[in-house]
Amino acid sequence: MGRYCFAADIGGTTIKMGLFSPEGEIINKWEIPTDTSDNGSNILRDIASAVKDEMTNRNLTSQDIAGIGVGAPGPVDKDGVIHKAVNLGWGVRNIKQELEQITGLSVMAGNDANVAALGEMWKGGGEGYRDLVVVTLGTGIGGGVIIDGKIVTGHMGAGGEIGHIHLEDDEKESCGCGNKGCFEQYASATGVVRLAKRKLASCSDDSVLRSGELSAKTVFDAVKAGDGLAMEIADEFGRYLGKGLAAIAAVTNPEVFVIGGGVSKAGKVIIDQAEKYYKEYVFHASRDAKFVLAKLGNDAGIYGAAKLVFDE
Amino acid sequence: MGRYCFAADIGGTTIKMGLFSPEGEIINKWEIPTDTSDNGSNILRDIASAVKDEMTNRNLTSQDIAGIGVGAPGPVDKDGVIHKAVNLGWGVRNIKQELEQITGLSVMAGNDANVAALGEMWKGGGEGYRDLVVVTLGTGIGGGVIIDGKIVTGHMGAGGEIGHIHLEDDEKESCGCGNKGCFEQYASATGVVRLAKRKLASCSDDSVLRSGELSAKTVFDAVKAGDGLAMEIADEFGRYLGKGLAAIAAVTNPEVFVIGGGVSKAGKVIIDQAEKYYKEYVFHASRDAKFVLAKLGNDAGIYGAAKLVFDE
Repeated sequence: MGRYCFAADIGGTTIKMGLFSPEGEIINKWEIPTDTSDNGSNILRDIASAVKDEMTNRNLTSQDIAGIGVGAPGPVDKDGVIHKAVNLGWGVRNIKQELEQITGLSVMAGNDANVAALGEMWKGGGEGYRDLVVVTLGTGIGGGVIIDGKIVTGHMGAGGEIGHIHLEDDEKESCGCGNKGCFEQYASATGVVRLAKRKLASCSDDSVLRSGELSAKTVFDAVKAGDGLAMEIADEFGRYLGKGLAAIAAVTNPEVFVIGGGVSKAGKVIIDQAEKYYKEYVFHASRDAKFVLAKLGNDAGIYGAAKLVFDE
Repeated sequence: MGRYCFAADIGGTTIKMGLFSPEGEIINKWEIPTDTSDNGSNILRDIASAVKDEMTNRNLTSQDIAGIGVGAPGPVDKDGVIHKAVNLGWGVRNIKQELEQITGLSVMAGNDANVAALGEMWKGGGEGYRDLVVVTLGTGIGGGVIIDGKIVTGHMGAGGEIGHIHLEDDEKESCGCGNKGCFEQYASATGVVRLAKRKLASCSDDSVLRSGELSAKTVFDAVKAGDGLAMEIADEFGRYLGKGLAAIAAVTNPEVFVIGGGVSKAGKVIIDQAEKYYKEYVFHASRDAKFVLAKLGNDAGIYGAAKLVFDE
């Protein structure tokens, strides 16, 4: 008989937990709060307790469990060492080793965006593909680059940090990372709002965006309603998005881009923008990459964390 | 006992051939002309003849040979299918299958730049590393991205086409690929000359570059001689080089960049320029990548082609 698997996707406020059947189906999912007090020193113990409680409730023993997969918000190297997670208060620590010691179970750990990408490949928008890039357009831009079914972790766990590709020489404001002109300063939810503010300030054309809250959602809703200024903003957004994805394609030539994150909720308009400008900037041999929407939403992380264990 | 291996690196004018011992040492290397007549239809037969002759001369039978590794100037997918090689007159053809049929030997094929990268990892500047990017600054910019010891071939064989990362929105001239603003329009041998011409035309400052031939070599020789204008050109070149390598690092986070090709003959000055500007544009977790010079020169291709076979 195969064995069950636990998954934990650690975020800044909650930890998403999941239990997967030996067949890879999700049986239960729940959340526990992320305790960032004392530099996040309780987080791994809290995960261990959640796992133990669930095992007790379901009469599962250690022999029934293949392991625990963990996604964490920072660069995680191949040994399961995270090299800093500012959100959690963590410095350098070996997640795999520590959680194995506490639980006595096998542990696999990865960067949250990379792990989510693996989830989308396994059961989401990238199902059936082996060479793909998952791009998460949220507050920033996260990514996961998958080659032949395996995450590109990178030397220091910083593979897939695509949000920090330099795209704009003329930028005056700094990105969260300290550089200027990063991909995520334009093509994330925050980026769309920045582009919108600049556009609105640069002209006096009428637009529904001149009243009410400005967000990626309101911008793309306005695009769908045919608002001219919103369409110009979306075009600018699309140009940056296409340019960034084309740069990635020049490196790994993926078969498909899976687009997720809050911004992608706008749906087909995002895919269309991405594809249009991608084709303008990409090397011809990569021109025919497919573009699809992510499917798993916030569950991508636990799916991917489980897949880390099932792949081991 | 292990088996011998043949290697063929197909260029537009010559095919570099190599014979490797079972221990992976090069025993013989020689060149045959590339016959591009009749759409290059004789090329694979010529390679087969060269292999057969060498086997006869050395009393080797098919049982002694592990296979033939081939590097070819075009995108080669995982099945050994090349999707066009303009230099050779080739359209789509299955190199692996065709050469196996002619020779009765096992064949592995890859893109020439990718295969050369594998060579540099095996016995060159990248020896001892598993996560690296080999960057060849020649007429254009070729590249090979290696993850955990394996070439990133990409879906259509266009992995590592890093010369076509878009870096400049303001470019008016077209790259050979048809796009505008590609990495190789600035940081290749041709690119340095373009930057130099523009710089010389933009001002009237004295420079040794105002007389004699303009080439990557004369520019970097002038840099070493302390020529002010040449140093400005090298700086501009370095900025593009650093920006391009930083984009790659955001995707795969390599441990080391191995810099080869004609331009790299200028030596340490190239590494210094690359590293200086790389650090300015790269995401902090990738900041500590190492920069080394390639070592195998024109032999990288046959080493890598042999490695393809030995790895199989």
